Amino acid sequence: MTGPRYTPLIDSLPSTVPFVSPEELERRLGRPFRARLGANENIFGPSPRAVEAMAAASSELWMYADASHQALKSALSARLGVPFDQIVLGEGIDGLLGYLVRLLVAQGDAVVTSDGAYPTFNYHVAGFGGVLHKVPYRADGEDLPALIEKARAVDAKLIYFANPDNPMGSWSTGAEIVAALDDMPEGCLLALDEAYAEFAPAEAVPQIAADDPRVLRLRTFSKGYGLAGARVGYVFGAQPLVKAFDKIRNHFGMNRAALAGALAALEDDDWLAHVQAQVSAARDRIGAIAADNGLSALPSATNFVAVDCGRGGAFARALLGTLAEDGVFVRMPFVAPQDRCIRISAGRPEDLDILAEALPGALDRAAAATQT
Amino acid sequence: MTGPRYTPLIDSLPSTVPFVSPEELERRLGRPFRARLGANENIFGPSPRAVEAMAAASSELWMYADASHQALKSALSARLGVPFDQIVLGEGIDGLLGYLVRLLVAQGDAVVTSDGAYPTFNYHVAGFGGVLHKVPYRADGEDLPALIEKARAVDAKLIYFANPDNPMGSWSTGAEIVAALDDMPEGCLLALDEAYAEFAPAEAVPQIAADDPRVLRLRTFSKGYGLAGARVGYVFGAQPLVKAFDKIRNHFGMNRAALAGALAALEDDDWLAHVQAQVSAARDRIGAIAADNGLSALPSATNFVAVDCGRGGAFARALLGTLAEDGVFVRMPFVAPQDRCIRISAGRPEDLDILAEALPGALDRAAAATQT
Repeated sequence: MTGPRYTPLIDSLPSTVPFVSPEELERRLGRPFRARLGANENIFGPSPRAVEAMAAASSELWMYADASHQALKSALSARLGVPFDQIVLGEGIDGLLGYLVRLLVAQGDAVVTSDGAYPTFNYHVAGFGGVLHKVPYRADGEDLPALIEKARAVDAKLIYFANPDNPMGSWSTGAEIVAALDDMPEGCLLALDEAYAEFAPAEAVPQIAADDPRVLRLRTFSKGYGLAGARVGYVFGAQPLVKAFDKIRNHFGMNRAALAGALAALEDDDWLAHVQAQVSAARDRIGAIAADNGLSALPSATNFVAVDCGRGGAFARALLGTLAEDGVFVRMPFVAPQDRCIRISAGRPEDLDILAEALPGALDRAAAATQT
Repeated sequence: MTGPRYTPLIDSLPSTVPFVSPEELERRLGRPFRARLGANENIFGPSPRAVEAMAAASSELWMYADASHQALKSALSARLGVPFDQIVLGEGIDGLLGYLVRLLVAQGDAVVTSDGAYPTFNYHVAGFGGVLHKVPYRADGEDLPALIEKARAVDAKLIYFANPDNPMGSWSTGAEIVAALDDMPEGCLLALDEAYAEFAPAEAVPQIAADDPRVLRLRTFSKGYGLAGARVGYVFGAQPLVKAFDKIRNHFGMNRAALAGALAALEDDDWLAHVQAQVSAARDRIGAIAADNGLSALPSATNFVAVDCGRGGAFARALLGTLAEDGVFVRMPFVAPQDRCIRISAGRPEDLDILAEALPGALDRAAAATQT
């Protein structure tokens, strides 16, 4: 008996995964982390009203969610000033990126991203047979004009651009993005990943007409709203593209309690403001801890800070290991020269106390391990 | 400005959806249903322990779920007697069917199902450009030998077979399935959808070696465990196929609280037994209500009952409408001659009281509406 016959594309794919989860790292380490500062989760948590709404909805989970997502989409429509039918919800931005790539990218089609940007996007492009062209970061930021120039050169159907950027925390202004759009080649879409928009200054959020066919914006309840584990993301843009998601999406794929939680979170502006203040304070504290250790924190418009460790990727990778030994989970950029940094998510004062306590020794041990 | 360039396959897809959700039907009707008996949800609900686990996990939803799903997969492994790495979790059977089709079906590849079986499977096959070949039901049941014969004739890569069947509630014995497997053509996989396994007699569940490369089994927490809105399904089978899901799945796509709820549900055998007893009583009651109205209920190994209305599809469709007017949500098979039936999900006594009260008038009005 032979096994099933996979598609040639599937046969060609490696068995890699975009990320190893912190729980898996803890199992390898043999103990839990003391400070979970690596996955850009919002440790300040969701609104208490969201928690309450999800707890209340737990007993209703015998029912499938409303596949039209009427309540949450209506609230988003009012909040964003975007028509209801120009918004679609999905299983986090990860899930929505998968759908978007599937809509546009057939085998061999060109796609453009930054070298070192979000790996899950690359995973989806590979998964549908797209050919990925990478543009270097410029001054630790994604370089939108260069991305567009590359898209024109390779006839790309899709550009990925995160603003603010992950993993560096850098950002372009909305005005820069709007200006760059006019250079977009015909038939190319800009996927504008705004996962961290709630942490960014207002000037980083572009004013783009909701029916502009050149852009699709991706947002999430995972970051500012503290609901990473709930899996609620959304996209908005021109109606034909948004409607095309209905051709392929998992219509009954959303968790019913998660939708209720996201709606309650969206309506709690006070909690969002509280989280923004906590994150801002945490960014400052991470900067101070870095400085105390002779390192320099990069400016951030997100809930994490890239800290320049002043040496190459081997040292930063060693430091990730020594911090993990001490129970501190952080991550780092994948690609040089950004991989001179480690990426630390905003934590509560008690989490950052642990970081502050662990960092000096971890730096010493990383230095010893990478001495040649 | 033109819009983005879709793939040719996407351009060819219609904008249909597999199902309209009851909430959408309620909005069209202008009022809520009094009895929600159409989506084969488990109205008896999840285990109170699962509700408690999900409510407790609500405040932890700032964390992504463990992408390895260690806790729930370990429990399933022990329960099923299947090695850990031969199980993969996903966003309901719907999501897993999408992944499975994507693994095997390239454009033009042949796939076989029963005419009138689960439409979401067909949706995924169309979504990846597969060519669907349909085999008629036989005596209101899916006809596995005929499915296999068709697969051989068209060189199919994949057969869909639900046991017990939805929408008819019929079933094959495990022994019949095991015997049929020996006729499977090489390189063809049987997707064995066992969504309703917890409601079926033991003899309906086949004994198949976990590493048999001819079969992939699909199960869910949506039905027996009452967690449809949580979105937790799983597949198990030979390791290479199960591992291939990791090439394409949304690794961080699961809701963290849902995983906790499913684990608690799996461990509460008493609640499952309670639900099974309630469902069994509800099936009997639906049979009695049908008989009181001159209709005949078909045997069922699921949490729903197909009720033969004794006339054609036009009458049954009219009856769906007149029942909905009276606040009773049920569905029906799509294809003749099974569309002579309506499909009624198991309800609590108070739900079935509403059905019993509404049915005589709804039958009269449907008869009047379809009189020629």
